[in-house]
Amino acid sequence: MKNDTSTDLCEDVVCEERYVLIYIDERRRYIIKIRRGERFSSDKGYIDHDDLIGLSYGSQIKLSSGVKAYVLKPSLEDLVYKIFRRPTQVLYPKDLGLILVMLDLSSGKRVLEAGVGSGVATAFLARAVAPNGRVYGYEIREDFAETALNNLSKIGLDRYVEIKIRDVSKGVDEKDLDAALIDLSNPWDVTEVVYEALRPGAPVIFFLPTINQVEKLLNKLYLDNKWILPKLVELLEREYETKIGALRPKTVMISHTGYLIYTRKILNR
Amino acid sequence: MKNDTSTDLCEDVVCEERYVLIYIDERRRYIIKIRRGERFSSDKGYIDHDDLIGLSYGSQIKLSSGVKAYVLKPSLEDLVYKIFRRPTQVLYPKDLGLILVMLDLSSGKRVLEAGVGSGVATAFLARAVAPNGRVYGYEIREDFAETALNNLSKIGLDRYVEIKIRDVSKGVDEKDLDAALIDLSNPWDVTEVVYEALRPGAPVIFFLPTINQVEKLLNKLYLDNKWILPKLVELLEREYETKIGALRPKTVMISHTGYLIYTRKILNR
Amino acid sequence: MKNDTSTDLCEDVVCEERYVLIYIDERRRYIIKIRRGERFSSDKGYIDHDDLIGLSYGSQIKLSSGVKAYVLKPSLEDLVYKIFRRPTQVLYPKDLGLILVMLDLSSGKRVLEAGVGSGVATAFLARAVAPNGRVYGYEIREDFAETALNNLSKIGLDRYVEIKIRDVSKGVDEKDLDAALIDLSNPWDVTEVVYEALRPGAPVIFFLPTINQVEKLLNKLYLDNKWILPKLVELLEREYETKIGALRPKTVMISHTGYLIYTRKILNR
Amino acid sequence: MKNDTSTDLCEDVVCEERYVLIYIDERRRYIIKIRRGERFSSDKGYIDHDDLIGLSYGSQIKLSSGVKAYVLKPSLEDLVYKIFRRPTQVLYPKDLGLILVMLDLSSGKRVLEAGVGSGVATAFLARAVAPNGRVYGYEIREDFAETALNNLSKIGLDRYVEIKIRDVSKGVDEKDLDAALIDLSNPWDVTEVVYEALRPGAPVIFFLPTINQVEKLLNKLYLDNKWILPKLVELLEREYETKIGALRPKTVMISHTGYLIYTRKILNR
Repeated sequence: MKNDTSTDLCEDVVCEERYVLIYIDERRRYIIKIRRGERFSSDKGYIDHDDLIGLSYGSQIKLSSGVKAYVLKPSLEDLVYKIFRRPTQVLYPKDLGLILVMLDLSSGKRVLEAGVGSGVATAFLARAVAPNGRVYGYEIREDFAETALNNLSKIGLDRYVEIKIRDVSKGVDEKDLDAALIDLSNPWDVTEVVYEALRPGAPVIFFLPTINQVEKLLNKLYLDNKWILPKLVELLEREYETKIGALRPKTVMISHTGYLIYTRKILNR
Repeated sequence: MKNDTSTDLCEDVVCEERYVLIYIDERRRYIIKIRRGERFSSDKGYIDHDDLIGLSYGSQIKLSSGVKAYVLKPSLEDLVYKIFRRPTQVLYPKDLGLILVMLDLSSGKRVLEAGVGSGVATAFLARAVAPNGRVYGYEIREDFAETALNNLSKIGLDRYVEIKIRDVSKGVDEKDLDAALIDLSNPWDVTEVVYEALRPGAPVIFFLPTINQVEKLLNKLYLDNKWILPKLVELLEREYETKIGALRPKTVMISHTGYLIYTRKILNR
Repeated sequence: MKNDTSTDLCEDVVCEERYVLIYIDERRRYIIKIRRGERFSSDKGYIDHDDLIGLSYGSQIKLSSGVKAYVLKPSLEDLVYKIFRRPTQVLYPKDLGLILVMLDLSSGKRVLEAGVGSGVATAFLARAVAPNGRVYGYEIREDFAETALNNLSKIGLDRYVEIKIRDVSKGVDEKDLDAALIDLSNPWDVTEVVYEALRPGAPVIFFLPTINQVEKLLNKLYLDNKWILPKLVELLEREYETKIGALRPKTVMISHTGYLIYTRKILNR
Repeated sequence: MKNDTSTDLCEDVVCEERYVLIYIDERRRYIIKIRRGERFSSDKGYIDHDDLIGLSYGSQIKLSSGVKAYVLKPSLEDLVYKIFRRPTQVLYPKDLGLILVMLDLSSGKRVLEAGVGSGVATAFLARAVAPNGRVYGYEIREDFAETALNNLSKIGLDRYVEIKIRDVSKGVDEKDLDAALIDLSNPWDVTEVVYEALRPGAPVIFFLPTINQVEKLLNKLYLDNKWILPKLVELLEREYETKIGALRPKTVMISHTGYLIYTRKILNR
């Protein structure tokens, strides 16, 4: 989130106690927290934090070896995938982007997240509903919940999030939520409580890695008979080599992260 | 966007002059604007608007034929692809989602959009930066600009957008913008003005349908020598048939919308 | 198959009673059987068969409208997809190609095909094992078997094929077959008889459109406990527009034909 | 190829001096040549070749550790990717399969291969045209040509192949060839000589890894003006994990091998 005080100098220049992205090349992208007296080191050379403080973001720097690098303000994507501790499988940007669109998120919305894990998706949900909305995250494992909260607090998004250490199948405290993201291995056990927590018409997305889970969940949703016809999609991201004169898809790609199942609550009588 | 007054009854029930999604089945999804005395008709039967007013969103209704349907609050996606006039090719949700993530958008950000077209991407950018940010849209064709503005005003997102009928290659008025989305057929002609309009380190995405455009743009970006190494990706969305016992990818899919080229402005000296 | 008599003039020039491919453009590819006195007509003009007889394959011709076209010798692919009557779903070239490789076919091999359908796969199997091998095709529906045989005889491949109107689950007459292609909706019912018909180590491919069939078959194969670990793949074919300066994937593609499950018979004791 | 003498015992049982596939599990597939007195060793245990001789193919064996394995007759695919020395990039089965179909190969055909490399494609072409056809392979590098010939002779396919150490752009000796596979980095330099070597109407496939090569070749083909409109495709092979109850695409896949460009020679006057 952007700070409210537009006079915040640290929006534009490297400040102490802020995260900075040191960009050397495509494979060498490091995030460091600026602290006086410390030194950043890599296989391409080092530079002292003191030499970075006060530089405008986007500036070119020279490492000890003479190699050029750049100081950039890290994006949420940079932060989440580089400084979050991630004891669990996490969602990828390609999936998160479509989730934000399909859950119809905007500032002020109140969202349920079941299965917080490392808090990666939580961060993106939180930013999408900030500054006026809120994410209610349910996580059964205390250690994950703590990691997630710790992760989120590092980047100031914890203030838009409430995390509960709780088996979501036991019930959701909130009512009339605007959307839900369910990233659990047994989502069929929670469709009723999720239903109760949502306002009529609200969208839900379930994220599932295996086809067997997809089948079992679809069966449950049909049985529940209070959701619109589920939509099942997966996204494949194909990245290219961009060398001039040798443009081609990268040889290897991530073929599979998970399936997205989208539906909406309806009132059935 | 959610209205600020949480007491707005029309958040929950069907009101006059509001858009409503009539959901009959996967292929029969209609958006209507509620007006007393009017009638909604489809090949599955009709219903009078008067019978809808006051219903809770999510409610089941019966069409004249006895067929069941549901009244839902349309998502931004529903609205944009169903009520926008679209004289131009438009971006798809899969691409827009990743764009929102890669451009690192959040409330308060100021974004450049070059090539507004029908305003589809504009709507998603606007919502992502609302309520405190702003989209500056440049569109060379007056008719497109008018259509886009008209589209956006139908859904109240025009207040976050400023559209200028202008060849963006002639210059951008704004400075220190946080991000840019360039959806032009000749993006190589605008890299300098886009560069000038962005704050250092800011991300840009170029959307391009053909490989030849990709090559020409990459050449230009390398020549400019003031951007980080561009990242080139495309997203494939694969949708499945969800019939119980006959789960399978749909036979036909959209194989190609366009390539996304992502880079960030750096200060080169 | 190539004719044995290398002196066959009709290998090189258009002859009576032979199939010829009239190639006008990518979308206008017609196969006709040359008969004196007949006329080929299209929306781009006509030409008399008599004017084609004796022309070298590859020759340019002019239709009545002045539009240019070419006479080509049809490939097996051209013939199968254009002159075969196809009352059933058929396999695509992309899948057939990989099947030929994975079934390790070569001249002299003896192959089982369960589920002959229209005979499309049969034609490719037959050609791969010709001139010394044989395809044993089992088809439960008499009408399909007749269509297939009729199709194959049009192109002279029937002599390498024996088709039996029979429920393959009732047993296969042949022993020690070198490979099998199973294109049935209930392959789990035939794994034992297929096993009995194959020589030890022989490969089998099952072609299945839905994931549910795949699951059920995998379960059966594991239960049988006399096959190597099955390999499950699908092939996606992406075609491009080749217009100079506007190279790009075609907008729409076939996303799904079916899944290929490959395994090999082992002796388990 | 199958041996002509059907009395060849070694078709069915493990013999000396023959290649055998030792299948332990999906990742442990070894090809060995059987020699009295030798021992096969793996991280899962060992077994003496003498204990394998005379076993029926498909037999279960026990390694020294007690781990079960199977002796299988290697397929051409097994052989080519496991015993061929491969100093060059090689074609994959998915591409080779479609190539066999599109080149319309059958016993007796005479095929040009420009760019023999390690002989992987040569092996599949040779088998497809055996026993009556022939592959004419042109390879500019002597070391590659020798490796290829050596590879092919290991599996007895050299008798269907003639390899010439020659820059194919200098000319092809053969005339009236039935098809051509061009796997060169500069195919635009050879389209004329390939044209001269083919019979009218004959198909050609060019295999190219980068888009830039594709563009340059397409330009050349259009300029030549004696080929039908080229077809450009790529194949994506998606493999699945087949664990019961956890069916899902493998996480990582080969995203790109190369583009296939298909065209046919026409007589232009």
